[in-house]
Amino acid sequence: MSSSIEHIAIVMGSKSDWSTMRYAADMLDILFIPYHVEIISAHRTPDKLFYFAEQAKHRGFKVIIAGAGGAAHLPGMLAAKTLIPVLGVPIHTSALSGLDSLYSIVQMPKGIPVGTLAIGQTGAINAALLAAQILAINDDKIHIALTQWRQQQTNEVLANSNPRID
Amino acid sequence: MSSSIEHIAIVMGSKSDWSTMRYAADMLDILFIPYHVEIISAHRTPDKLFYFAEQAKHRGFKVIIAGAGGAAHLPGMLAAKTLIPVLGVPIHTSALSGLDSLYSIVQMPKGIPVGTLAIGQTGAINAALLAAQILAINDDKIHIALTQWRQQQTNEVLANSNPRID
Amino acid sequence: MSSSIEHIAIVMGSKSDWSTMRYAADMLDILFIPYHVEIISAHRTPDKLFYFAEQAKHRGFKVIIAGAGGAAHLPGMLAAKTLIPVLGVPIHTSALSGLDSLYSIVQMPKGIPVGTLAIGQTGAINAALLAAQILAINDDKIHIALTQWRQQQTNEVLANSNPRID
Amino acid sequence: MSSSIEHIAIVMGSKSDWSTMRYAADMLDILFIPYHVEIISAHRTPDKLFYFAEQAKHRGFKVIIAGAGGAAHLPGMLAAKTLIPVLGVPIHTSALSGLDSLYSIVQMPKGIPVGTLAIGQTGAINAALLAAQILAINDDKIHIALTQWRQQQTNEVLANSNPRID
Amino acid sequence: MSSSIEHIAIVMGSKSDWSTMRYAADMLDILFIPYHVEIISAHRTPDKLFYFAEQAKHRGFKVIIAGAGGAAHLPGMLAAKTLIPVLGVPIHTSALSGLDSLYSIVQMPKGIPVGTLAIGQTGAINAALLAAQILAINDDKIHIALTQWRQQQTNEVLANSNPRID
Amino acid sequence: MSSSIEHIAIVMGSKSDWSTMRYAADMLDILFIPYHVEIISAHRTPDKLFYFAEQAKHRGFKVIIAGAGGAAHLPGMLAAKTLIPVLGVPIHTSALSGLDSLYSIVQMPKGIPVGTLAIGQTGAINAALLAAQILAINDDKIHIALTQWRQQQTNEVLANSNPRID
Amino acid sequence: MSSSIEHIAIVMGSKSDWSTMRYAADMLDILFIPYHVEIISAHRTPDKLFYFAEQAKHRGFKVIIAGAGGAAHLPGMLAAKTLIPVLGVPIHTSALSGLDSLYSIVQMPKGIPVGTLAIGQTGAINAALLAAQILAINDDKIHIALTQWRQQQTNEVLANSNPRID
Amino acid sequence: MSSSIEHIAIVMGSKSDWSTMRYAADMLDILFIPYHVEIISAHRTPDKLFYFAEQAKHRGFKVIIAGAGGAAHLPGMLAAKTLIPVLGVPIHTSALSGLDSLYSIVQMPKGIPVGTLAIGQTGAINAALLAAQILAINDDKIHIALTQWRQQQTNEVLANSNPRID
Repeated sequence: MSSSIEHIAIVMGSKSDWSTMRYAADMLDILFIPYHVEIISAHRTPDKLFYFAEQAKHRGFKVIIAGAGGAAHLPGMLAAKTLIPVLGVPIHTSALSGLDSLYSIVQMPKGIPVGTLAIGQTGAINAALLAAQILAINDDKIHIALTQWRQQQTNEVLANSNPRID
Repeated sequence: MSSSIEHIAIVMGSKSDWSTMRYAADMLDILFIPYHVEIISAHRTPDKLFYFAEQAKHRGFKVIIAGAGGAAHLPGMLAAKTLIPVLGVPIHTSALSGLDSLYSIVQMPKGIPVGTLAIGQTGAINAALLAAQILAINDDKIHIALTQWRQQQTNEVLANSNPRID
Repeated sequence: MSSSIEHIAIVMGSKSDWSTMRYAADMLDILFIPYHVEIISAHRTPDKLFYFAEQAKHRGFKVIIAGAGGAAHLPGMLAAKTLIPVLGVPIHTSALSGLDSLYSIVQMPKGIPVGTLAIGQTGAINAALLAAQILAINDDKIHIALTQWRQQQTNEVLANSNPRID
Repeated sequence: MSSSIEHIAIVMGSKSDWSTMRYAADMLDILFIPYHVEIISAHRTPDKLFYFAEQAKHRGFKVIIAGAGGAAHLPGMLAAKTLIPVLGVPIHTSALSGLDSLYSIVQMPKGIPVGTLAIGQTGAINAALLAAQILAINDDKIHIALTQWRQQQTNEVLANSNPRID
Repeated sequence: MSSSIEHIAIVMGSKSDWSTMRYAADMLDILFIPYHVEIISAHRTPDKLFYFAEQAKHRGFKVIIAGAGGAAHLPGMLAAKTLIPVLGVPIHTSALSGLDSLYSIVQMPKGIPVGTLAIGQTGAINAALLAAQILAINDDKIHIALTQWRQQQTNEVLANSNPRID
Repeated sequence: MSSSIEHIAIVMGSKSDWSTMRYAADMLDILFIPYHVEIISAHRTPDKLFYFAEQAKHRGFKVIIAGAGGAAHLPGMLAAKTLIPVLGVPIHTSALSGLDSLYSIVQMPKGIPVGTLAIGQTGAINAALLAAQILAINDDKIHIALTQWRQQQTNEVLANSNPRID
Repeated sequence: MSSSIEHIAIVMGSKSDWSTMRYAADMLDILFIPYHVEIISAHRTPDKLFYFAEQAKHRGFKVIIAGAGGAAHLPGMLAAKTLIPVLGVPIHTSALSGLDSLYSIVQMPKGIPVGTLAIGQTGAINAALLAAQILAINDDKIHIALTQWRQQQTNEVLANSNPRID
Repeated sequence: MSSSIEHIAIVMGSKSDWSTMRYAADMLDILFIPYHVEIISAHRTPDKLFYFAEQAKHRGFKVIIAGAGGAAHLPGMLAAKTLIPVLGVPIHTSALSGLDSLYSIVQMPKGIPVGTLAIGQTGAINAALLAAQILAINDDKIHIALTQWRQQQTNEVLANSNPRID
């Protein structure tokens, strides 16, 4: 079962990223999946980043969701320091609309993968869902929760197929 | 253990994508992880795509790696039809250098995630590694294989730190 | 004649796309061309998408207008499942301004075409006009309606050639 | 039936565009659909462009396929001068990889649509197919030819689903 | 001398472009250079465009300033129909920020030049200045007016070199 | 008449730009318009740039064509130092395909215009043509030469309208 | 100690750039590093630019921070006229979001370097920090100030690692 | 004098980057400035990266030149771990032409600057020159070497101002 143990860590480079990453947290809440959340800056707290990554497996994390913007090094540096799957969320930026974040996260070199999601809020939600899908491989309760959530999502679209009716 | 059962499926939109996706296969070979490989075109064989996605869990697949180029719909449509984690590899394209593939794969809407890797060969290798990392959550043998592979990779860089010596 | 039978279907990926796609509907209203409108999500209702495409010809549709944003798979997947001409409207997106939508729609692979219009509202209007032009090949009433609409459009520009007069 | 009358015109801005646009011609040959082919430059032969567009309907053309590169004005100016559906093919360019061509063709203003296909060779092939699909609305022979061609295309992918076998 | 004859024509594709192009008019007013202003749409009034270009020399125009947005064909089509120098101003667009306008204007093919200025308001002002510089080659009064305007511009920067003082 | 006096200066930032800018020279040769050609680097010979610009009017130059690549400052700095119209040619670059050159030349600030042409060889040819068109305002011989050249260009396209015939 | 002598000059192309560049000034204030600030326009006051660059070493400047937008020539032209390290800050622009500024500053040709920072406010702050780091090579007081500032920055992130607490 | 002590370190992410970064080394050789060169991968040898950055000041390095491609984290992570000025060189990449490298290096967040140079070979050369200019602030011999090199560079351009003479 999806126990009370936190198997997912949601980390982000700065406080301001929370307005995006909270959507990942909300989605996990909906799925009744516990998670840890923490601000870790690749550039301002590099040692903490390394320590976090080194301890991650021992703390029981199975998936790490990392959000970062601009020259977004957090997901990639976490991935360099652990074998736990890292999912990256490119945060929207004012100058380059998150394209800088996207390139900095997705274009990782051979050997160190980061599974990258869409820019911004949508990416945060989908990172939570993908993390849940990964856990669901070996957790039937999460699999059921995901199945129900998807079915509900589908039903809502089906039930509201006429765009003219609010 | 990483048994002889194929837990990973590598699919791609066309035969020409194989020159990229074979690097995913090669990496799994190095890690001694069995896998299934198949050409499935979202646009030319849409029914097969649906059937494949519907059967994927029953066939024992735990991760799907999907490579596609241009208006790359294969990873996203697979993700829409299964809860198995889908990892997308944007194939390099002649006109837009794979930027079209990247956008078509990574910018998935809320609800249906695709974990996206780098454009081209590097992305194919990293999709294999990320798939292995996902399986490694519950498979110690794969975890060991990954640990060794990474260590070897690190050792090689450490042993060749002088760029002037071939 | 442009009968009361709906020969044009306007479909879109989500309710929020209606604020763009309604301009297609409005234009068809102006031309007195009946149409069907429906929300079909490639990712959240993939089976409905297939069913819709398979039934489209039998229902009498001759042109499909499909609007979608981000990794916009709706137009392309419809085109993969029917021979009815599909016109794609890239919806404007907050992060990438609809460039992701444009690439995902226009860069279709060899064999499955989608006739793509401009990003956003303008594209929706023009999709309606192009659909009407396609029907007009064999429908003189629509041809006359289009001729009159264009003439009126031209007259308005000619009558207001001084930008300083409101 | 798909008679010997040329209902499709393939035009292009310069001789050098033929290396791309010939793929449209080849596809129509495969479908046994007759067509007219001609070089018309929006910038070097603007009067001819206008004359061609004005005569197009009288000559029996039902769809115009127009390929152009760079500041690609040919498709848009044809569309401005006729109600016959115009399909635009952005030609690949050396400096901007056809992105200039794509923007110049797809971003048409409200009122004058151009149905745009992919950049380069793929776009040329798909323009031919979309033109055929448009004619097929009222031409059963073309519909059958398209159905067969698509089935054959699907069969080929299905028959060659293992990328390792040549 | 810069007589009362209008040697410069400012044209634009639609009424909405006036909010940008009026800055060109204002600049010419500052330089006491008379000009003609008119809305001419390449797509909605193509015949007028041709007629205007054909008559331009006879009407005494020596430079044409043309502003257009999106698939901005106005400057290029004018240039195709007259030997009078055409200066193009790419209008800012909501989806692609005027990049579509810029490419459609600047990437003209061999043989038909358009001198292109910056996107938006700045481009409109500079088109007026460049038009004035062209006339100034043979008009000392305009040369003097430009010299004075530039000197004044320089003086203002020199007199306000401390950004902290308003 | 287009006398033996050099009214046009073609300058470029480095020797390597000559492979592009020679097309401007060749076009002026075709039109029998004399010109001056010189390498002036904004960054490596800034003082020469200033001296050249200050002397340009006294030397009789009426139009300056300036080609530069990358952070292409040559056209803009010349324009800052003279009232002679400056036409800029963005040289193609290996990393950014000349997009850096284009932005650096076309996005000039309010007050100092540079008339920008297409990236690369095409831009060089068109800069020569636009310079000639500017001189033609007051030079009937050049006007006639341009008229003839254009007519010849048109005739060639008209005479070779079938792309299948070499 | 970091004396009262101004070793850093902050220059910018126009008054409007101050809303960005003031962040550089504020950061130097925090570090107790004196600096000079001045508006110098490459295009509107080119002679002043040259004079400033020629005098810069004699006035004691050791680092120049230059902010500019659009076709941002100020940093590059300063770098061309002095051996003092020049740090460039690309100002955000309305049309191209500062991408034009970035390319115009960072893509300097071989021989004349400009150390480029991020677009906008962030770049201004970081230019100040990098200038301080350069001075700190030979100034222990600045080194201490930087060390303390960084430690404080790190401490703040460490002390506020829970994004849910304000 | 520029002593035999290595004050500059040239580091890069992989052996393949040497084909670019060797141009930095060559330039320092020309200026008779000793330097250290080493391969350090942010992703494959993260611990070494941290150790190197922590020891850098003690080893006497005053400037670090770091080249990296793709999701180029090396320069930024070094900058996060040391106060020594870090200059970043974006390596050209096959898919995105180094635009990914550029964004990943230049768009550093507030607090941790990287002075970024041009993409590729040119950037490597200019990183060496900027590093030399930084050292020259307190090293007259390097200042003289730079002055001479620049003068020679200028002389070469002046001596070869006619592009037609080889």
